[in-house]
Amino acid sequence: MALDTAPAVKELRQILGAKVHTGVPARTARAHDRSHHVWSLPDAVVSCASTEDVSRALAVCFRHGVPVVPIGAGTGLEGGANSSTGNVCIDLSPMTEILHLGVQDLDATVQAGVMKSALNAAAAPHGLCFPAGPGVDASVGGMASTRASGTNAVAYGTMRGNVLGLTVVLADGTVVTTGGLARKSSAGYDLTALFVGSEGTLGIITEVSVRLYGIPETTATAVVPFPTLGAAVSSVSAAIAAGVPLSRIELLDDVMVGAMNSYSGLSLKEAPTLLVEFEGGPAAVSENVSRFEAIASSRGALSYEFAADPLRRDALWQARHDALPAAAALRPGASTWSTDVCVPISRLADCIEETQADIAASDVLAPIAGHVGDGNFHLAFVLDPAVPAVLEVAQAVNERLVRRAVAMGGTCTGEHGVGIGKTSALRLEHGEGVRVMETIKAALDPKNLMNPGKVL
Amino acid sequence: MALDTAPAVKELRQILGAKVHTGVPARTARAHDRSHHVWSLPDAVVSCASTEDVSRALAVCFRHGVPVVPIGAGTGLEGGANSSTGNVCIDLSPMTEILHLGVQDLDATVQAGVMKSALNAAAAPHGLCFPAGPGVDASVGGMASTRASGTNAVAYGTMRGNVLGLTVVLADGTVVTTGGLARKSSAGYDLTALFVGSEGTLGIITEVSVRLYGIPETTATAVVPFPTLGAAVSSVSAAIAAGVPLSRIELLDDVMVGAMNSYSGLSLKEAPTLLVEFEGGPAAVSENVSRFEAIASSRGALSYEFAADPLRRDALWQARHDALPAAAALRPGASTWSTDVCVPISRLADCIEETQADIAASDVLAPIAGHVGDGNFHLAFVLDPAVPAVLEVAQAVNERLVRRAVAMGGTCTGEHGVGIGKTSALRLEHGEGVRVMETIKAALDPKNLMNPGKVL
Repeated sequence: MALDTAPAVKELRQILGAKVHTGVPARTARAHDRSHHVWSLPDAVVSCASTEDVSRALAVCFRHGVPVVPIGAGTGLEGGANSSTGNVCIDLSPMTEILHLGVQDLDATVQAGVMKSALNAAAAPHGLCFPAGPGVDASVGGMASTRASGTNAVAYGTMRGNVLGLTVVLADGTVVTTGGLARKSSAGYDLTALFVGSEGTLGIITEVSVRLYGIPETTATAVVPFPTLGAAVSSVSAAIAAGVPLSRIELLDDVMVGAMNSYSGLSLKEAPTLLVEFEGGPAAVSENVSRFEAIASSRGALSYEFAADPLRRDALWQARHDALPAAAALRPGASTWSTDVCVPISRLADCIEETQADIAASDVLAPIAGHVGDGNFHLAFVLDPAVPAVLEVAQAVNERLVRRAVAMGGTCTGEHGVGIGKTSALRLEHGEGVRVMETIKAALDPKNLMNPGKVL
Repeated sequence: MALDTAPAVKELRQILGAKVHTGVPARTARAHDRSHHVWSLPDAVVSCASTEDVSRALAVCFRHGVPVVPIGAGTGLEGGANSSTGNVCIDLSPMTEILHLGVQDLDATVQAGVMKSALNAAAAPHGLCFPAGPGVDASVGGMASTRASGTNAVAYGTMRGNVLGLTVVLADGTVVTTGGLARKSSAGYDLTALFVGSEGTLGIITEVSVRLYGIPETTATAVVPFPTLGAAVSSVSAAIAAGVPLSRIELLDDVMVGAMNSYSGLSLKEAPTLLVEFEGGPAAVSENVSRFEAIASSRGALSYEFAADPLRRDALWQARHDALPAAAALRPGASTWSTDVCVPISRLADCIEETQADIAASDVLAPIAGHVGDGNFHLAFVLDPAVPAVLEVAQAVNERLVRRAVAMGGTCTGEHGVGIGKTSALRLEHGEGVRVMETIKAALDPKNLMNPGKVL
C-alpha cells in the first residue's frame, strides 16, 4: 500500500518550483543506475543545485514521511541509486560547482555532482590531479557514497582515504559538516568515514573535500604476460613485499585479453597478463621498472613490454577501462554484469582459479579483470540475450564467488558497494556487525526514509 | 553521590577471580595516563587477558550500571584513560599476544595490549615493519583508540588508514568484529573507522588488524636549518607538491633544537630546522635527496647535512623522540605538557609564528616540534615548579592556539585525541557534528557506561 506522496510533492513544488519534475521522461532518466537490478519510477525528481536545495527538500519529505533516493551520475553497479514507486529522487547531478581548489594544500572541495573528469580538468593546470576512482567517469559525491576506488587504489588509496571532509544533509534536513582540511585529526568520531560508503542511507552527501596529488614527473607502463595466473599474482605480492612502488597493477585473464584485443585493436598475447604502472622521478621509475622486471622474470614472465610512449600508454589504459564494453562485444547484443570481491593477496590466485573453474563448469562467459595490488577482482558476466537462463547462472556463480571470497577472509564488495544487490552478502560477511550498523541507521534515520532498502 | 560498586566487584571476582584487583597499589598503577589531567582511583581493576575476559567484565558492569574505563600502556596525553571514583578499570595491558602475522599479505592481528615495539620485533625477521604511531612506545589498541600517528604519517598514514579491522566489546559485553583482512571494502558502514579514535566511548577495542610494510631498502636522513620558520615550511609544501616522496618531515624551532643539543649531546645549529627522511631503492633515494636539496637551497637553507650512516640517523631520531624530556630538562624539576593542533599546510607557518609570538608575550617556555608534512605541531610547555602560575598561563596559550588552529580550518587535535582535555574544543571545531556523535553514542551506549565524560 503505497503512501500518497502528492501532498509532499505539492509542497516541494511550492518551495523549489521548477526544480521539481514529475514528467515521465525526467523520472525515467533518474530512476536507476547501470546495474541489472530492479527499479521503478520515483514519484518526483528534485533537481538540486545546492546543499540548501537538498536540505529544504529533505525537510519536506521528512515531515510527510516520504522516502528519498539520491542519485548522482548514475554509474553505480549495485542498484544503490535505484528508485521505487513512492519515493522522491534527489538528483545531485546539477551540483557541478568546484567550490575550492587548494593548490598549496593539495585539496579541493566540490559539490557532489562534480565529475571526476571535471575535477581533474580544473586541477591539471596547477600540476595536480585527483587519481582515486573508477575507470568510468563518475561523480565525486557518488564515489564517496559507495567508497569507490579503481585501478590506482594500491598507490593512492580508495575514497576512504581520499575524502577529508563532507557536507551531509540528514533525514530531517539538518546540515552537518564533517572532517575538515587538516590532513589528519583525532577530534572525535570519524563521521566522515561513517558517511563515506553509507550509500545515502544515513544522510545525503552534498559537498566533498578531497586530497589532490602532484602529477608525477614520469610515468611508465609495462605489459607482462605470464604462463599462469598464479605466477602473475605471486609477482605482484613479491613486488609489494619488496617495497617496489607500483601505482597501478591490473590483472587480465586470457579471455579478457582476447576481448580487449578485438574491441580495442590491440595484439597482446592471450595469456594471464599484468598491466603495471610506475610513477616518480626518472631515476626512481627506471630503478623500479628494473626491480619489477627481475621479480617477474624469476616467475617466468613470457615477455616484458615497457611502454614509455604516452600514446601507447593511453591506448593500453583506455583498453583496460573499456574492458566491460569489450566483454559485451563478445556476443551480439549482450550486456555485462560486473561482480566485485576482494580477498587477501595470499588467497587471490586460489580465489581466481577456483572461480575460473566454476565459470567453466557453469558454461557462462565471464572474462576477469582485477586490481590485484589490493586483491580486488571483477568478473564481467556476458549476458547473452540468446541464452535465456544466463542471468540465473551468473547469479549462482556470483553467489558462490561471494561465499568463496568471504570464506577466504575477504569481502563481498571491494568497491562497488552493497546497494540492493549485496544486502544478504553483507550479513554473511559481517554478522553481528550488521546489528551495529542497524543501530546506527535507526538512530540517525528513525523514520527509515533515507534510501530505504539499500545496504541494510 | 557515587554508586555502590561493591556488588558488581563481588560478581566480577566470582567470574574473573584473581584478575580483579582492589588493592590501592594496583588501582593507582592503572588510574591515569601521562597527562596533567585530573584522575582518581577506580574501584577495581580487571586485568584482562582475552576478548572473553573483557566481554564477561563488561556484561557484569552493564547489568550493575557501573562505568568502565579502559587503559592500555597508559601513554595517552589527554586523560582518555583516566579513572574516577566509582568506575571499574579494564586493564588491557596483559593482552600481549600477536595472533597472526601475514608475511605475504603484509598484515598482522594483535591483542590490544601488544606494544608497537613488540609488533616491530616480531615483524622484523620477515623484513616487515609497523611504522605508524608515536615516537614513544605505545600499545596498538591504545593507538587505535586515539587515532594516533607520529613522525611518519606523511608517508604511511595514521591509525585511521593502518587499521584493517577490529574486535570490539560493546557496552553489554557483545563481541563485534569489524573490517577484515581485505585491503579495501565497500561492504556497509565503516565500523572500523567509527571505533578507531572513539577512545573507548563506544566499545573497547580488544584486537586490532593492521597493515605492515616492507622495511625500505635504503633510508637517509637530512638535517636542514633555515633562516626562518616560513622558509622551512615552504620547502616542505613545495616538495610535497612536486611529489618528492618524504617518509618523515619534522620541524623543530630554534628553542627545541637548543633543548635537544643539551639533552642529547648534539651540536646542531640553533635555527628553525627540518629533519627529513627519505626511503626507497638507492637510486630513488639519491634522486629524491637531490630534488629536496634543490628545493631547500632555493629557499635559503643554511646548510644541508646528509646522514646516511645508521648510527648518526638513529642518534638524530632518538633525539627527536626525546624532545619532551629534552624540553623538561630546560628547567630543574620541570615536567612537560604537549599540545597538539593540526592545520592546512598553507596556514602552518602563520599558525606557528603567531603562536611563537603568543608564547613570547605570555612569558612561558614552550619549544615547538611538529610533523609538518601534515601540518601537525606540538608545543612542549615546560611546567617549571618554580613558577606557580605556569599551568594557568599554558592553559590560556593552549586555548588561544586551539582557537587559532580551528579558525584556520584546522583541528583541535591531530593525534593525541580528545580525552577530557579537549571536550570543549571538540564542540568549537565540530558544532552540529557533535550532536551526530552524541546520537551515535546514545544508540551504542544507552546507559553511558563506556568511558563516560571522555570525548563528548
